[in-house]
Amino acid sequence: MSNSLVAMPAIPDIVIGRLPLYLRALIYMKNQGQLTTSSNELGRRLGMSSAQIRKDLSHFGEFGKQGTGYHINYLVDQLRQILKLDQEWRVAVIGAGFLGHALANYNGFIHRGFHISWIFDSDITKVGEDMGGVVVQPMDELEETIAREGTQIALLAVPAERAQAVTDRLVKTGVQAILNYAPINLTVPPDVQVGYSDPVVQLQHMTYYLDASRS
Amino acid sequence: MSNSLVAMPAIPDIVIGRLPLYLRALIYMKNQGQLTTSSNELGRRLGMSSAQIRKDLSHFGEFGKQGTGYHINYLVDQLRQILKLDQEWRVAVIGAGFLGHALANYNGFIHRGFHISWIFDSDITKVGEDMGGVVVQPMDELEETIAREGTQIALLAVPAERAQAVTDRLVKTGVQAILNYAPINLTVPPDVQVGYSDPVVQLQHMTYYLDASRS
Repeated sequence: MSNSLVAMPAIPDIVIGRLPLYLRALIYMKNQGQLTTSSNELGRRLGMSSAQIRKDLSHFGEFGKQGTGYHINYLVDQLRQILKLDQEWRVAVIGAGFLGHALANYNGFIHRGFHISWIFDSDITKVGEDMGGVVVQPMDELEETIAREGTQIALLAVPAERAQAVTDRLVKTGVQAILNYAPINLTVPPDVQVGYSDPVVQLQHMTYYLDASRS
Repeated sequence: MSNSLVAMPAIPDIVIGRLPLYLRALIYMKNQGQLTTSSNELGRRLGMSSAQIRKDLSHFGEFGKQGTGYHINYLVDQLRQILKLDQEWRVAVIGAGFLGHALANYNGFIHRGFHISWIFDSDITKVGEDMGGVVVQPMDELEETIAREGTQIALLAVPAERAQAVTDRLVKTGVQAILNYAPINLTVPPDVQVGYSDPVVQLQHMTYYLDASRS
């Protein structure tokens, strides 16, 4: 597949958002020693229809064959390329509290395209502390470091009341993608992406299926 | 709308998963003082088509009117009822490390249907510690507490290598919904729900839109 296909503009964002789920499931199968899979199997694993999966993947080319299904290694490589994960993205964590600590020590980033490279905090008692191999820097070095390193991705782990002000600084310095852990909506220019990490959204999905009378 | 509609079996899980996103956006608008909205406005805010939103909501009844749109208060109440958020669900956190700490202190649960009621850790030096108003209990009280309280929801904030063993204990004691923060796939019986909190899935969605040559 060529890069011109990757840059095709008409692919709905909701489709892009499902590709990482396919990738995660495929890598899980790969690690189990599996070589091929089908849209049916992927669908069962992800709770989606096989037709949806085939349709999503068809936006990017012809990955499977009727009868033989998908070659897992090949599809993993293609999805990594589409999602630009054939490089490692260096990520800045803002906030060295409990959550920043947890993120710095999270080992789910490894081999999945990301590396926590910087941690910033405004609390000078935290500056200099080693978190998962990264030394906490003072917030007043934020702009210089991010501009110098060309950092495009930040994890925002600051209290809700500081989240917008920090976001404004990140955006001004060239950060293009923010994953926000604070329970507030952020305002950013249209060319900056914000993701929200919100456990409540996932819990509210699950309560639909729970027995309310038991609780 | 009647409860029999809520229990309608044919609604795809992927639709249920979008309802919390609608609810969050609607509550945001409500807090801004807005009284009505449209599927167009919701769609713009969530990056989805208005047709998809209308179709999703139509599974549960007739909430909007051509021309006037949706009454935000009414739709919020209906979504809360559908998702069984008209009660408060008490939640157990397993693991009192950095992440458990962050979850215990997260103020995004308040007024959204959930309350962190118990925290467990196997490290006796953490037992007795107050985290966000909840006292850490020893892991060997897990079964008794969960059975006695009828706890259905757990947040799993333990290291990856312990996650499956703790899950087995939770499931045996009657927990029906687990939000897993460890970067591993859990095996559970078909009647138990597992959600995965995985920042990488969200980051991989965003890298699609980034300029790989800048990094």
